[in-house]
Amino acid sequence: MEFTAQQIADFLQGEVIGDAQVKVNNVSKIEDGKPGTLSFLANPKYTHYIYTTKASIVLVNRDFEPEEKITATLIKVNDAYSCIAQLLNLVSQARPEKKGIDSSASIAASVTIPQSIYIGAFTYIDENVKLGENVKLYPQVYIGENVTIGENTIIYPGVKIYHDCVIGSNCIIHAGTVIGADGFGFAPHNGSYEKIAQIGNVVIEDFVEIGANTTIDRATMGSTIIRKGVKLDNLIQVAHNVEVGNNTVIAAQTGIAGSTKVGSHCMIGGQVGFAGHISIGDRVNVGAQSGIPNNVKPDSTILGYPAVPAREFARSVVMIKKLPELRQTVDDLRKEIEALKKQLGK
Amino acid sequence: MEFTAQQIADFLQGEVIGDAQVKVNNVSKIEDGKPGTLSFLANPKYTHYIYTTKASIVLVNRDFEPEEKITATLIKVNDAYSCIAQLLNLVSQARPEKKGIDSSASIAASVTIPQSIYIGAFTYIDENVKLGENVKLYPQVYIGENVTIGENTIIYPGVKIYHDCVIGSNCIIHAGTVIGADGFGFAPHNGSYEKIAQIGNVVIEDFVEIGANTTIDRATMGSTIIRKGVKLDNLIQVAHNVEVGNNTVIAAQTGIAGSTKVGSHCMIGGQVGFAGHISIGDRVNVGAQSGIPNNVKPDSTILGYPAVPAREFARSVVMIKKLPELRQTVDDLRKEIEALKKQLGK
Amino acid sequence: MEFTAQQIADFLQGEVIGDAQVKVNNVSKIEDGKPGTLSFLANPKYTHYIYTTKASIVLVNRDFEPEEKITATLIKVNDAYSCIAQLLNLVSQARPEKKGIDSSASIAASVTIPQSIYIGAFTYIDENVKLGENVKLYPQVYIGENVTIGENTIIYPGVKIYHDCVIGSNCIIHAGTVIGADGFGFAPHNGSYEKIAQIGNVVIEDFVEIGANTTIDRATMGSTIIRKGVKLDNLIQVAHNVEVGNNTVIAAQTGIAGSTKVGSHCMIGGQVGFAGHISIGDRVNVGAQSGIPNNVKPDSTILGYPAVPAREFARSVVMIKKLPELRQTVDDLRKEIEALKKQLGK
Repeated sequence: MEFTAQQIADFLQGEVIGDAQVKVNNVSKIEDGKPGTLSFLANPKYTHYIYTTKASIVLVNRDFEPEEKITATLIKVNDAYSCIAQLLNLVSQARPEKKGIDSSASIAASVTIPQSIYIGAFTYIDENVKLGENVKLYPQVYIGENVTIGENTIIYPGVKIYHDCVIGSNCIIHAGTVIGADGFGFAPHNGSYEKIAQIGNVVIEDFVEIGANTTIDRATMGSTIIRKGVKLDNLIQVAHNVEVGNNTVIAAQTGIAGSTKVGSHCMIGGQVGFAGHISIGDRVNVGAQSGIPNNVKPDSTILGYPAVPAREFARSVVMIKKLPELRQTVDDLRKEIEALKKQLGK
Repeated sequence: MEFTAQQIADFLQGEVIGDAQVKVNNVSKIEDGKPGTLSFLANPKYTHYIYTTKASIVLVNRDFEPEEKITATLIKVNDAYSCIAQLLNLVSQARPEKKGIDSSASIAASVTIPQSIYIGAFTYIDENVKLGENVKLYPQVYIGENVTIGENTIIYPGVKIYHDCVIGSNCIIHAGTVIGADGFGFAPHNGSYEKIAQIGNVVIEDFVEIGANTTIDRATMGSTIIRKGVKLDNLIQVAHNVEVGNNTVIAAQTGIAGSTKVGSHCMIGGQVGFAGHISIGDRVNVGAQSGIPNNVKPDSTILGYPAVPAREFARSVVMIKKLPELRQTVDDLRKEIEALKKQLGK
Repeated sequence: MEFTAQQIADFLQGEVIGDAQVKVNNVSKIEDGKPGTLSFLANPKYTHYIYTTKASIVLVNRDFEPEEKITATLIKVNDAYSCIAQLLNLVSQARPEKKGIDSSASIAASVTIPQSIYIGAFTYIDENVKLGENVKLYPQVYIGENVTIGENTIIYPGVKIYHDCVIGSNCIIHAGTVIGADGFGFAPHNGSYEKIAQIGNVVIEDFVEIGANTTIDRATMGSTIIRKGVKLDNLIQVAHNVEVGNNTVIAAQTGIAGSTKVGSHCMIGGQVGFAGHISIGDRVNVGAQSGIPNNVKPDSTILGYPAVPAREFARSVVMIKKLPELRQTVDDLRKEIEALKKQLGK
């Protein structure tokens, strides 16, 4: 599909500066824009690229005023970043939609299948599973007994969902993620360990997106809960009986130990570790690779191992860097004191 | 299934305080107990919940004496925690057992199948695989050539076990785990790398449980070994030629580099990293997120990056927190010395 | 298969010391060598094992001169380590090669299949996939639409490759790895988040090896790129629009945040975290568990959190260890100054 600058400007309610008839059929980043593609300028750090980019069209904010000649056609819009997101969505939706039930899928007799569903090859659906309208189950997915999946939810290839788990509507779960494996619970017994059965489940609310190869364990009793609008990246570990509050965003490889409660609207960096049985307030920001041993108050910004307020962390880093200097100062002072003592002793 | 307080008390050899005929059909945590469920009080931190819980029955230790009125029926037992574990096991065992061989499974001609086995849909079993009695292979499992799996072992959906690996009896391996992929071995050669073939295997002894999406690499030569009774959580990395000693417990996202030997009865926190070619003694405790560059003596408790004895770590944390104060003290001393020098110079 | 010491020496152009007719049928490590196996001595740390090993043959470097009696037959070669790698390769290649197309595989009509291919059971290949000669797709692999896979590439069980991705020739991708899942991109909108469609792809160049359960996300626009000869270990996270330069080696559980560019010939330890939108020079060495918040110059060796030059890190570690001592010194100086002041005040 090709569009002219004018067509795109009309769609985005923007204004064309330059050749309104130039055509594009793809999207590119401004630093490696090619002819026939549309790019955008949202971050001022990238402004210099606009004078050399080979992209045919560049979306810019209305207040952008070029300081040199620009070859590309410009489309001025209110918010270039949100407009490019809209266009990416358009392009993405242009892909043919998956539909129908692959004849190789294994579906238990008790499962009712909505007309609008997609079930891919080698996908396994056990007894009493409930599937909403427009659910998409890609190939090689496993859905255990009594699982419920809400409408419009997309489950990518190879996802495994154990029995009794509940997945909301409008969720996206990426390939290889495991939901509802047993929590890590053992009781010491004569030098070895006895398994504590994990009879709870996992509840994922609506509008949650989960990355690839992430693991969310079922609760010992009750539920491990991922609230509405949460976004989890790849390779994240969520232990049994954890609760993650609504609209919290967590970057890759972070781990949350058992029974910890993370608040809503938090932003958690990558490779962070939370101890078990602690409570993190709402709107907390945690820097990448931090270790959180204790409760955290709402609206905190913390960092480090163990995590401290970001300002304190920065100060410690500087202090540690200057330790050799501090040590030298102390040595110098010692010498001066020795000199003073000698002088006085005289 | 429903049980009365009296039936449960009889089973646990406990004593009923309150309505012996009240019935429950599920288990709950005391802080969110619902009518018709049984809960328990083991951790004194949670005692206050017993006066408000809506659970119909609460298991308590024999020495528990209420200080206020309690609505729930109590069952007094010798060890509430171990009793709840027993009950969770009962509930868990009440789930219908998986049996039989799914017609879609792909099983090589040379494999002998015990009558008691479960083999799920789309599971692949290659030549010369040996399967013990009561083995359960969930759907979409891959078992490479010459693999041996001992009796009563459960392999959850999507687990991949490469050729020649040996899995003991009474093991549990959760979904998405990969056992026996090639160790990470390359020889530098003219600025690029040549693969070193990994011809060893992985040996998992009896009573081992492994979480979801964990990876255990095959040895270059010989075996990567997970000893009897080891419990590994999710997303753990075990490199080639590692050995983990019996009854050691390792939390999620920990990584063990090549040829390292971890002792028996260790307790390793989450996100810990072990360097390669080192030896960790028996009964070592390692705090979460620690980095272990060198050998560790038996019976140590260590923490930090690089890890040090726990007490030393705690002291360093305090010291670093107080660095600004120390610096201020040094500045003050400098001024006093200046003053003294002036006074003496007079 | 069995070989005599003489046959092996001829193959490796080595010289036999001892019984040239002794036979071996496997390879072992020198510390646990068994009769009938061949072992090697490359690392001087292991020299003492040569006097007690039960291996029948040991490869040694030409300059090795025993100081005691050795039972094993020796084969002297120019480079024992590279010779053992050659032999491991031979053993590994002796395994029967997988061939043919399993009848249960699901292959879209538009896909052309080379004669030399292996496609395992329950593998799914979507429309317009292009497969090179000698490609091996193990069971339960998922290949999305328009994916290209170059000749001789091996894809192990359960790997998932999303649509539009490009895999080079002579690559190896281990079980459970996910390539091309959506990058983690969301735009804040009235307290929740809107997904930014990820319409780019992943490009893996030739001679790349990727471990098990690793995740490499597709680009928002353009490509996430893994250059020629890169080796990635298990459980690594590569975010959208990252580029990893040729012949860079990255150990397990490392994470690279979005749009970061890692140079060529780097060596990255395990559990390292790279911030997003930064640039790492060529030939950079990063110690395990480091956190990299900013750009790094070529030829650096860095370590720590945040990472600093390795020498500075080592110094800081010592300094922190000695903080109690420094504090004591400062206290002592304070007392001496008090004493001096008293003396002067008299």
